[in-house]
Amino acid sequence: MSGVTHAKDREPMELGIIGLGKMGGNMAERLRRAGHTVIGFDFNADAVKKLSDAGSKGVSSLEELCKAFTGRKAIWIMVPAGEAVDKTIEGLKPFANKGDIFIDGGNSNYKDSQRRYAELQKQGYEFVDVGTSGGIWGITEGYSMMVGGDEPTVEYLKPIFETLAPAADKGWGRTGPAGAGHFVKMVHNGIEYGMMQAYAEGFAIFEAKKEFELDNAQIAEIWQYGSVVRSWLLDLTADALKKNPELDGIAPYVPDSGEGRWTVFEAIDLNVSAPVITESLIRRIRSREENNMTDRMLSVMRGAFGGHAVKKD
Amino acid sequence: MSGVTHAKDREPMELGIIGLGKMGGNMAERLRRAGHTVIGFDFNADAVKKLSDAGSKGVSSLEELCKAFTGRKAIWIMVPAGEAVDKTIEGLKPFANKGDIFIDGGNSNYKDSQRRYAELQKQGYEFVDVGTSGGIWGITEGYSMMVGGDEPTVEYLKPIFETLAPAADKGWGRTGPAGAGHFVKMVHNGIEYGMMQAYAEGFAIFEAKKEFELDNAQIAEIWQYGSVVRSWLLDLTADALKKNPELDGIAPYVPDSGEGRWTVFEAIDLNVSAPVITESLIRRIRSREENNMTDRMLSVMRGAFGGHAVKKD
Amino acid sequence: MSGVTHAKDREPMELGIIGLGKMGGNMAERLRRAGHTVIGFDFNADAVKKLSDAGSKGVSSLEELCKAFTGRKAIWIMVPAGEAVDKTIEGLKPFANKGDIFIDGGNSNYKDSQRRYAELQKQGYEFVDVGTSGGIWGITEGYSMMVGGDEPTVEYLKPIFETLAPAADKGWGRTGPAGAGHFVKMVHNGIEYGMMQAYAEGFAIFEAKKEFELDNAQIAEIWQYGSVVRSWLLDLTADALKKNPELDGIAPYVPDSGEGRWTVFEAIDLNVSAPVITESLIRRIRSREENNMTDRMLSVMRGAFGGHAVKKD
Amino acid sequence: MSGVTHAKDREPMELGIIGLGKMGGNMAERLRRAGHTVIGFDFNADAVKKLSDAGSKGVSSLEELCKAFTGRKAIWIMVPAGEAVDKTIEGLKPFANKGDIFIDGGNSNYKDSQRRYAELQKQGYEFVDVGTSGGIWGITEGYSMMVGGDEPTVEYLKPIFETLAPAADKGWGRTGPAGAGHFVKMVHNGIEYGMMQAYAEGFAIFEAKKEFELDNAQIAEIWQYGSVVRSWLLDLTADALKKNPELDGIAPYVPDSGEGRWTVFEAIDLNVSAPVITESLIRRIRSREENNMTDRMLSVMRGAFGGHAVKKD
Repeated sequence: MSGVTHAKDREPMELGIIGLGKMGGNMAERLRRAGHTVIGFDFNADAVKKLSDAGSKGVSSLEELCKAFTGRKAIWIMVPAGEAVDKTIEGLKPFANKGDIFIDGGNSNYKDSQRRYAELQKQGYEFVDVGTSGGIWGITEGYSMMVGGDEPTVEYLKPIFETLAPAADKGWGRTGPAGAGHFVKMVHNGIEYGMMQAYAEGFAIFEAKKEFELDNAQIAEIWQYGSVVRSWLLDLTADALKKNPELDGIAPYVPDSGEGRWTVFEAIDLNVSAPVITESLIRRIRSREENNMTDRMLSVMRGAFGGHAVKKD
Repeated sequence: MSGVTHAKDREPMELGIIGLGKMGGNMAERLRRAGHTVIGFDFNADAVKKLSDAGSKGVSSLEELCKAFTGRKAIWIMVPAGEAVDKTIEGLKPFANKGDIFIDGGNSNYKDSQRRYAELQKQGYEFVDVGTSGGIWGITEGYSMMVGGDEPTVEYLKPIFETLAPAADKGWGRTGPAGAGHFVKMVHNGIEYGMMQAYAEGFAIFEAKKEFELDNAQIAEIWQYGSVVRSWLLDLTADALKKNPELDGIAPYVPDSGEGRWTVFEAIDLNVSAPVITESLIRRIRSREENNMTDRMLSVMRGAFGGHAVKKD
Repeated sequence: MSGVTHAKDREPMELGIIGLGKMGGNMAERLRRAGHTVIGFDFNADAVKKLSDAGSKGVSSLEELCKAFTGRKAIWIMVPAGEAVDKTIEGLKPFANKGDIFIDGGNSNYKDSQRRYAELQKQGYEFVDVGTSGGIWGITEGYSMMVGGDEPTVEYLKPIFETLAPAADKGWGRTGPAGAGHFVKMVHNGIEYGMMQAYAEGFAIFEAKKEFELDNAQIAEIWQYGSVVRSWLLDLTADALKKNPELDGIAPYVPDSGEGRWTVFEAIDLNVSAPVITESLIRRIRSREENNMTDRMLSVMRGAFGGHAVKKD
Repeated sequence: MSGVTHAKDREPMELGIIGLGKMGGNMAERLRRAGHTVIGFDFNADAVKKLSDAGSKGVSSLEELCKAFTGRKAIWIMVPAGEAVDKTIEGLKPFANKGDIFIDGGNSNYKDSQRRYAELQKQGYEFVDVGTSGGIWGITEGYSMMVGGDEPTVEYLKPIFETLAPAADKGWGRTGPAGAGHFVKMVHNGIEYGMMQAYAEGFAIFEAKKEFELDNAQIAEIWQYGSVVRSWLLDLTADALKKNPELDGIAPYVPDSGEGRWTVFEAIDLNVSAPVITESLIRRIRSREENNMTDRMLSVMRGAFGGHAVKKD
């Protein structure tokens, strides 16, 4: 993969990574392959072992992680948004020195990142927030990273970003001060919801148009080349439809992580009308509602004024 | 009911009514009570018998209906929108004279009414379209009627409208030329969809807010008096919730008749953005989708790029 | 006005009212007319004078207000939501006794009401939140009130609610514990947004349908009697259209107070899909966006892929 | 450009093209470069001259175009959807033979294509509908083509499709019988509306978040590499933002061609809920509404019930 320049092109660095799941584990490996020294921790011992087996340094505690550094510590935290981030930072502080860098690469709310930055600054530490996109494909294709934080700190971490990104100078950038990385990533996910919903509605229309006996897998594949709607999401969709054209065994149930709803809240707070991102979120919520109360109310109301027959359970 | 002025106040008329269901049957009776002569036909012999028993003249064919008139014929057609209206008119014509009036009081598309008007005019007949609102309550409360057609014809039918309306000079009016009655009624129903959806969403929020143990029936009743959202729909809703506070046995399934979707089409054709009426229609459609294809596509896409767990059927 | 039963029917009470604007001033007068003793304060001396002139007791400070009571104090706070409520309560406390009742009748966020209740309880005071609907018409028609708080406190205030409501036993009720009043009022306003948007879209469609030369004022009036969409909002709309059928001088600019957006946030937090209330809010936001950025982006994108002409400023 | 295989790899064909604008002209040139014989006509003589200058055969009438063929005629019609297509076909018929093929490569409504197919079949001609995507970039990148029609006819035209597509076996396909090509293209454009709206909303949120001083051009560029939202549309957007980061001179005015609204109509007719595609259309309509009537109505209503100040023009 051309994006992974060998370390000889750049200064190799030491990086701690906490959280070695789908994302963190792959990032660790991508960094190792490029010559960086990765020190990894996870509460799951298997994940640590997998890291060690691949040639990085797996450790079994936050203390051990900190002590394994030979110089200034840069620690990438890749844990679920919320309390886990605060707890991790608190757990690291006793072993950290002034100037050490905490990097939150997860899906934190940008307001938490602003708060953490302010608190850590007062205590003499650095904090950088990184919105990371790329999913399970990042290990080979690289990650898109939106970075918020002070310029010198971001500059110091450049070799890490240049390795994780699809290419040294592409796919990552400092978008602004602390918080700006997670803010941009938040909206990125909102857009993603909208795009996904648009595609999904289109394929649902095809499925309903029985008279043409359309083949969703074929259509997705056609569109991958030359069409205005071609995209990476479409590439993945085409692959998925090829493997499972009838969506066998797939339930109509769509979770949402925090970022879509934060985008909606933020748009309203900023007085920006964002109906499509909002509606995409609402439809995910709708997919999880059982025995929909709104629809039952509507049915009752129709019966009340029109004497319309009401469908029973 | 104060709205039903006795015929002595106005010229009593002869009116034929075709279609003696929920709406037509009640209208016939409201007219009879006010002193008009009603001649009624329905393919359902029981409905005709009921009319006769009440003291109006039930007939068993379109021919018989026409022959029962002593003078100029005014025939109110209350049959399902579409082909049935055309067939009824065709069935009446052999027994009709120049100047006779066909009234379409059903939920026809206004474009059909424009077409029927044009055709009948050429043949020497009159045509009036009446958008009729009021549901099953109209027999006592009166009907709201939006009338399209030539002014002299509408004027001629005034005693009928004055009787059917809640009050002689209230709740009905000529809104414009032929088609304008059904057009206004179409949009009326679009608005109705939006209002119903707004209420229903509100009550669904209450139902979900477990911490307050809110009582939807109580809230609806409170709002009936003095609140900004009080309305006739709310009155009916309050009654319905009192009888069935938990919506026992009600399925989350909401039909739509033609008018909501016609309103949406018309808004788009007119380049008027009408998101709430449109969304209200879409949600009714959504209530009837099983194993929602859009949501299944979304689930597959999430799995494809993020390795997210996909809920199985 | 039948709703204002004379105090002989009920125990007359002493009530302090802080905030004598459109709402507070009218409520004070409605209470006075029914025989209650009203003690009123406002930073605006004119408002206080108006109250005194009408026969109630106007005071010039919170201290004076408290001292004017002869017994247990019940003080209705009718000030803008937010900090002003907290400041008012803080300003009253030095002159309050254990057991005195603070009533927040404004449009506070229900979470603030829950917090205030908890704080005041600890300090020995009572707190009741009242969502008040009715607008400028309440003085004659009565107010719809949704009350949250402890049952004994609400019971104690019953003579006040029975007077302010359209009728003693109608238009008000305790909907649940502290916070439940403002919660129900919040959703009430969300529903109001949806209803208003539905009507407005309908009239916009009529205005665009040039071929029929429809008369919005006439249509609104027809619908007031017998139609499914009749409501108090429609009554007001019909009046407004009669006075200003062409909406002369009205700008397409629609503010929103907090409650609509809180309803949207709450629906999302509760995982209830509420697309119509949400879209109604979004459209109000849209009405205030100048040189819409989304649309400018769309225009640029169309130009980029399709070579479509881009309209210039 | 790798997609343009030289004709030696495939049978070179004769193809007539009517309509040599942005799309038709570029397609003609792409075909010529690959060794096909292109006979082109346009009412605009300059466009014909440009074609001739490039080495294809420009003609000055439909008759001349037909007579320039040495064998079975295949004529690609690339004119505005609607009447122009019918007129072109009618103009060609006097010079056509049984078995000749009319190809509609424009943005026709699929129902028109079904009708044209049926009519032409009866008369002994073939008809194929091709939904063509790719915009102004197709000349070098190739076109995505969704083809509807009889299999033998589509098979016969294969060398044309293989040349126009980005690669011989990629980016085109027969999606079904006549009409199915334009149907799939119609929905393609609906999806495109949704994707564009999602991106545009995101960038509008960034623009409003003054505190971070975000740079839309930079963000778009970051996302091009490795992000989940990367796409061809985003590539073009990034280019456009680089050239004009402040969108100088761009008006917030967004046209829509027929396909978005047809998609919305079709979804409703099929009882498929497609809220995001629909809302994207509605927002384009909204962008063109001046002195928005809905918002003015809302403003009047607010004034009527709440005594709220109404913003004047």
